[in-house]
Amino acid sequence: MSDPFAHRTGSAAPQGRVTNRLDRLAAAARTAGVDAVVISPGADLRYFAGHSVSSHERMSALVVPVSAPARMVVPALERPGWTGSPVESAGVEFTTWTDGMDPYRVLTDLLPAGTQVLAVDYAMPAVHALGLSWAIRGSRLALAGDIIGQLRMRKEPAEVQALAQVGAAIDRVHARIGEWLRPGRTEAAVASDIARGLVEEGHTGADFVIVGSGANGASPHHEASTKVIDPGDPVVIDIGGPNAAGYFSDCTRTYRMAGSGGDPDFEQVYEVVRRAQLAGVDAVRPGVPAEAIDEAARRVITEAGFGPYFITRTGHGIGLEVHEHPYLVAGNSMLLEEGMAFSVEPGIYLPGRFGVRIEDIVVVGSDGPVLMNNAPRSLITVGS
Amino acid sequence: MSDPFAHRTGSAAPQGRVTNRLDRLAAAARTAGVDAVVISPGADLRYFAGHSVSSHERMSALVVPVSAPARMVVPALERPGWTGSPVESAGVEFTTWTDGMDPYRVLTDLLPAGTQVLAVDYAMPAVHALGLSWAIRGSRLALAGDIIGQLRMRKEPAEVQALAQVGAAIDRVHARIGEWLRPGRTEAAVASDIARGLVEEGHTGADFVIVGSGANGASPHHEASTKVIDPGDPVVIDIGGPNAAGYFSDCTRTYRMAGSGGDPDFEQVYEVVRRAQLAGVDAVRPGVPAEAIDEAARRVITEAGFGPYFITRTGHGIGLEVHEHPYLVAGNSMLLEEGMAFSVEPGIYLPGRFGVRIEDIVVVGSDGPVLMNNAPRSLITVGS
Repeated sequence: MSDPFAHRTGSAAPQGRVTNRLDRLAAAARTAGVDAVVISPGADLRYFAGHSVSSHERMSALVVPVSAPARMVVPALERPGWTGSPVESAGVEFTTWTDGMDPYRVLTDLLPAGTQVLAVDYAMPAVHALGLSWAIRGSRLALAGDIIGQLRMRKEPAEVQALAQVGAAIDRVHARIGEWLRPGRTEAAVASDIARGLVEEGHTGADFVIVGSGANGASPHHEASTKVIDPGDPVVIDIGGPNAAGYFSDCTRTYRMAGSGGDPDFEQVYEVVRRAQLAGVDAVRPGVPAEAIDEAARRVITEAGFGPYFITRTGHGIGLEVHEHPYLVAGNSMLLEEGMAFSVEPGIYLPGRFGVRIEDIVVVGSDGPVLMNNAPRSLITVGS
Repeated sequence: MSDPFAHRTGSAAPQGRVTNRLDRLAAAARTAGVDAVVISPGADLRYFAGHSVSSHERMSALVVPVSAPARMVVPALERPGWTGSPVESAGVEFTTWTDGMDPYRVLTDLLPAGTQVLAVDYAMPAVHALGLSWAIRGSRLALAGDIIGQLRMRKEPAEVQALAQVGAAIDRVHARIGEWLRPGRTEAAVASDIARGLVEEGHTGADFVIVGSGANGASPHHEASTKVIDPGDPVVIDIGGPNAAGYFSDCTRTYRMAGSGGDPDFEQVYEVVRRAQLAGVDAVRPGVPAEAIDEAARRVITEAGFGPYFITRTGHGIGLEVHEHPYLVAGNSMLLEEGMAFSVEPGIYLPGRFGVRIEDIVVVGSDGPVLMNNAPRSLITVGS
């Protein structure tokens, strides 16, 4: 659908990056008491192998024992698709299997003797996870999600560059919202135009396009409906997608439609959310707990009397997936480190009336926040 | 990104269809010795609930015990997104959970006493499948893939209608190939144009666009590279995507670029594949084993002396996923029934030289094949 290795961005040689990441994965697994990690197609494989394939019913996997070299196991049919991939260039050997063989047996036969704990990625399809669990009777299946998440959430410079690039792309889409967002149109029609705008501005596709007008904005996960957008409506626009490197944008602005109508409390609520979001962003620096960002944003909303209407956590990590570690939520006392990337997106949701959310992607810099989004945060009226 | 319930197609009331499918699922599970089936977001949930959501890290699931009513378990945050969904309209009750609760415990607490075997869908992410396996200690986790596959592979009339609609859409894309496929362009540039063509002709997106020119066509899973397409090149074009109802197209034609050059054996090989594909399609009727279609196509290729170069199975089922049951492969003695839908796609792959593949989607009719694709199968030369 385009160059499958278009994600070779950044300055580091991709095979060097693969070797480095595999070494760190093996070290983290050893610390966690895991003997081998198995990674199936998806964002985790893209991170560790520099390449992934769409996962159909045939098993492909990267096997990373802590005490032996990593191996790729793929269907013979798909082996040519890995030619020239970073994981191959890094010298990882491939084992192929053909229809009729038991791929789980092929994989477990590659494991060093004495393998007791095999950890699989969070997203591995149950058909493969259970297939492995039955093939390794006597050993124990665990989840590698935390081990992998700890590595992936600390972004390398080339990854921050990719997030900044896709952040600028989504900023350009928000700058064009007035082209599409007009009273009398349905949310779905506006969403369809915005999706095209994402591609025009440098995304490889639109991953999500939320257009929540009037009362629909009060539901944080509303997508886009056949509701017609009215004059005066507050409209929550939450949009994002991947760039060619596979890194995601995610940025929310709440607009006001021109014209009379709309809720008399909207401007006041907007201002509270704007200050809360700023407080959250300002709290970002190395060494503070993840939950402190949530607290900083929540305090502004609670003190303004809207605490019960801030019904979500403040943010989620982002990178090769839209939602990944770290999560900015009460109870997450993990200390932020330079290079971590996440959304800061407080909101106020008034059921049956409207919602306001403002969201930017922030990377932890050496002494404070580095914003990946720079679309204006002041209230913008469109459609006049 | 558009009306989330746009997939309410066909004549049957969607809630009636959900009730019917849930009843059949419970009956099939009972026969298989399963006490309850758990289905996570994806094509299976879309089939049984009439709606799905993108699966992030929070668990959503449809729970179908054989001896109690079905239930939906969703994060409280996502409950509004299910308002008006077919599964809700069918009267299925919802249980919500909030951050801090153990969703697996919430789910297993809903199971009738005495639940011994819990079967999960093939695609359930390992984080949820293992989470459930730990929450139901004492019971046994199994895979529901076969149970579900048996139901999904027998298409209802509205599903055949959807496959015909999306099949006509991909035919229109193939009819326009001459607009994009020209010598001197890269495979990737052609693929990018074709992807836009899929959307213009009625797909909601391009799921895969394979452009394999010259020797690249000899790799069945090659996608599209920076290789420049030469005059005389054979070019395998294998494309597909979903329509608004979620049903997939998948159609391959092999073209010849105008101009001198190219392999002297190409026309002969093309003719063998054309006859093999026709033989496969002609063998389709109720009551014949799935493997008989593979045999019919393979015999033509083997008798022409190219047997070792037909390195794939002949076809795969298709519907809400690109690959699903039934598979047309040696060893699959399952008897075809009216309403089953699959690809017939024999090919000859000559390493280092070129490949030829011709693929149509076929539905088993009451007394023979019903073709979902009608693009010409004779050799077409483009780019002159």
